[in-house]
Order: sequence, then structure tokens, then C-alpha cells
Amino acid sequence: MQKLTVIKVGGKIVEDESTLASLLRDFSAVEGYKVLVHGGGRSATKVAAQLGIESRMVGGRRITDADMLRVVTMVYGGLVNKNIVARLQACGINALGLTGADMNVMSSHKRPAKEVDYGFVGDVDKCDGGMLAKLIAEGVVPVMAPLTHDGNGCLLNTNADTIAGETAKALAPYFDVTLVYCFEKAGVLRDENDDDSIIPHIGESDFTRLVDEGVIQGGMIPKIENALSAVRAGVKRVIITKADAIDGCHGTVITK
Amino acid sequence: MQKLTVIKVGGKIVEDESTLASLLRDFSAVEGYKVLVHGGGRSATKVAAQLGIESRMVGGRRITDADMLRVVTMVYGGLVNKNIVARLQACGINALGLTGADMNVMSSHKRPAKEVDYGFVGDVDKCDGGMLAKLIAEGVVPVMAPLTHDGNGCLLNTNADTIAGETAKALAPYFDVTLVYCFEKAGVLRDENDDDSIIPHIGESDFTRLVDEGVIQGGMIPKIENALSAVRAGVKRVIITKADAIDGCHGTVITK
Repeated sequence: MQKLTVIKVGGKIVEDESTLASLLRDFSAVEGYKVLVHGGGRSATKVAAQLGIESRMVGGRRITDADMLRVVTMVYGGLVNKNIVARLQACGINALGLTGADMNVMSSHKRPAKEVDYGFVGDVDKCDGGMLAKLIAEGVVPVMAPLTHDGNGCLLNTNADTIAGETAKALAPYFDVTLVYCFEKAGVLRDENDDDSIIPHIGESDFTRLVDEGVIQGGMIPKIENALSAVRAGVKRVIITKADAIDGCHGTVITK
Repeated sequence: MQKLTVIKVGGKIVEDESTLASLLRDFSAVEGYKVLVHGGGRSATKVAAQLGIESRMVGGRRITDADMLRVVTMVYGGLVNKNIVARLQACGINALGLTGADMNVMSSHKRPAKEVDYGFVGDVDKCDGGMLAKLIAEGVVPVMAPLTHDGNGCLLNTNADTIAGETAKALAPYFDVTLVYCFEKAGVLRDENDDDSIIPHIGESDFTRLVDEGVIQGGMIPKIENALSAVRAGVKRVIITKADAIDGCHGTVITK
């Protein structure tokens, strides 16, 4: 099986010219087949504010009413995505910008309102790995925006980590897939104040132990749960690392 | 050769919910392979105004400075394009939204500043018909936004009529191509005040005569010159008609 790397970068990286330039250089240098998944929350917040629309977040997640859906459609699907695509083309990478609606690559359903009504936010139902795999094998590099659709004509704002995870899983039958989550830190740290305390490898059994020991806590728990769910679904390895170290040789590696 | 129809609709049609719904229904019903090319100028003007950016037009063309380029990237590449794609998917059409940067489908160069500096506006150099033809043959329906790129990482605002013409020409070696320009009137009229005075057919020699007679004048002259350039380049026929009559049976047909 040929190697494929799905790399997820947050909005912070792609919205600043200097970090974006570094990322595109590093991404271009990644060998083998690849997919880029990006966020764009900071730009969305900025454009929304300029349009007089307030950004409301609950637990780090954006409440997406109809006005905010227009903003994220513009910012994620247009501004951020198309600029990355044009920049990658200039690096000789045959990028293709996609939302989940394009070629019906990723469909979702609107998250039911429970304690919180997140509005036009999608929980993923299906990713069409076959179509993506075909394009990738032809040399196309998908650049995926954090937007999906419900199949009834409505776009839905969707977490970029989830898009990356679902894409990696859907491509696992076709490639030897590595999923890289770019993070502020160099990996999962044993001591959050010591950047040199990276835990090099976490397996299923280590995870339970590290949570019990209190080493892994807070927001890192769902991140690693997601990673373990991806490797259980056929992704070979998930790497948590910094955006400037996406070559697969750094950070914390999570396997089954 | 299989039939393919390239349909260009202006911003006015795609920005109003009722006309958009009709268009999508009519477009879905068009038989054979197809491509949709859309504008979005009115939305761009509206979003720009909300962001405090003034829209400046010269001869109907938008002056595109850096701020306006951000706006058209958001509006054409994101808001308008992705909503059309999601809506077409709901109609069972396997739409794929594209700018010229995506898969390097259409490259251009920044128009040199002469009497007017149009800013980040692109004049098309090349359309990759081969890649488009391959996707189309697989059942994908490209939905093209009026944006191209210069190959050096910069997106460029590009006239949607030109995008449609270049796409039709680039696909002419692969399909029997009909190019449909949607217009406010039902076709080219002999008497602009009489909607029943449609000229059913215009060929190269008719054109010169009709211009000499003063029947074709003003903005219609470059439109028909574009159409004739398309048929000279292998497009089988160009149809000028209303957006509610895109079935190829109405309007003015232009051939060699």
C-alpha cells in the first residue's frame, strides 16, 4: 500500500502569513500522497466582527446561526481554502479545495439541540473515500475546509479535527494512512511545562494508564480518544506534533 | 461525440432565492453533460458595503484592490459557489465547485494597468480541458466561480462570461459543446422594445450586416464577438437566452 498523510492544521497557522508560508513549504516537502485539512476560526471571528456579527462559543465550539453560517461559508470555503489552494499550486502541488458538499465528499446531519443548540453544525455521517482515493491516485491533493452538507441543500459548519479523522478513516482501505494533528505543543507532554517531556508513543493500554495517573487530562483526553478511534478504524498511526514538524518524525505517535 | 452544455448565469439569478431555485431545477433537467458558471457581483457589492469597502466599477467591470479581492474570494469562491454546490447535490447533481486555482483548471495573468488599473483582475491564459473532461465523463458537474490564479499564488477576479467561453472552448475537443449565456432578454432582439422580435440565428456574415444596420449595438457587440470567437474555436453553438429557457430550444443561436 502506498503511503498517505492527512495533515490537520488549525486556523492560527493558516491565517498568519509567516506561519502559513512555513506550513506550505513543509507540506510541499511531505513525501507520498497527502491531504490538507484546515480550520479558520480566527478569520471567521474577525470577518464576523467586521460584519457586526458576534461570535458565540460554547466549550470552544462556535454557535452557528444563519448569519454565522454565511460567514464560515465565505471564510472557510472561500477566503482560507482558495488562498491555500492558489499558494500550493505555486509550490507545484496540484491542490483541489473541497467542502463536504463538493462531489458529496462528506455528508452530515445537523446536530440536534440538547443543552446547547449549536445551530448549523454538522455531525459527520459519511465520507466518500473512493472518490477521494481516485483523485489522489491521479496526483490531486485535496485541501479540505471544515464544512459539510446535509444532502438537502444546507451547508453545515463541522469541526476540522473531525473532518481530518473521518477523511483518514475513509482513506484507510486505499492507503497506508498517517494522520497528523498539528498542535501548539511538540506532542503529548508528560509535564506540560517541559517541552522536552514528549511521550513518544501511546497505545490503547497506555492511554488508560496515563489518564489514571493524571498525565493526560482536560482537552487532551478527547483528542487522544479521537486518535484511538481512528487507529481502530484502520488508520495506521496518528501523530500529535507542532505545525513545524509534520514530517512524521516528531511528536507523539498513537497506534492501536 | 457526447453533448455537453456550459451554462453561464449572472449574479442576479443566483443571488435571489426564487430565481436560484428555478435555475437549479432547470439546470438539473438539462440533459447530457453540463457545467455551470456563475457570477456574484451583487453579493460582492453587498458584502463589501457591509465591510465598509466601496465597490468601484469602470465600464461595468469591478476595480479589484487587495481588500476587494478578499471579498470576491469569499463571496464567489465561498458563499455563492458552495451554496450552489450544496443545492445541486440536493437535486441529485454531483456538483464540484471550482475556481481556476483548483487543480490548476484556469490560469491567468494580472491585467496590465493601462488607462484603467483594474487591480487583481485576470486575463485568462489557459484552461485545462483534459482534467475537466475526465471529471465530467465520471459524472461530476463542475460549478465554476469567476476566479482564476496567476500560478504564483495569487487569485485573480475574472469575468464570468470569459470563464464560460474559455471553458467551452477547452472542452470542445472532447464534447459536442453548446454554450448558453443567460441574459435579461429572451435573446438578441431585432427591436429591443419587442420581446417577440428575437433573431433566431446569427452567423459570422449576419453579424457584420446586423452591426452595419444598427440592429446589434452597444454591449451586445462584444457579447456576440465572444460567441463567434467561441464557435470559431470549436464550440458548436452559442445560445443567448433567458435564465428560464436554458433547455437549448429558445433564444438566439450563434454558429460559424
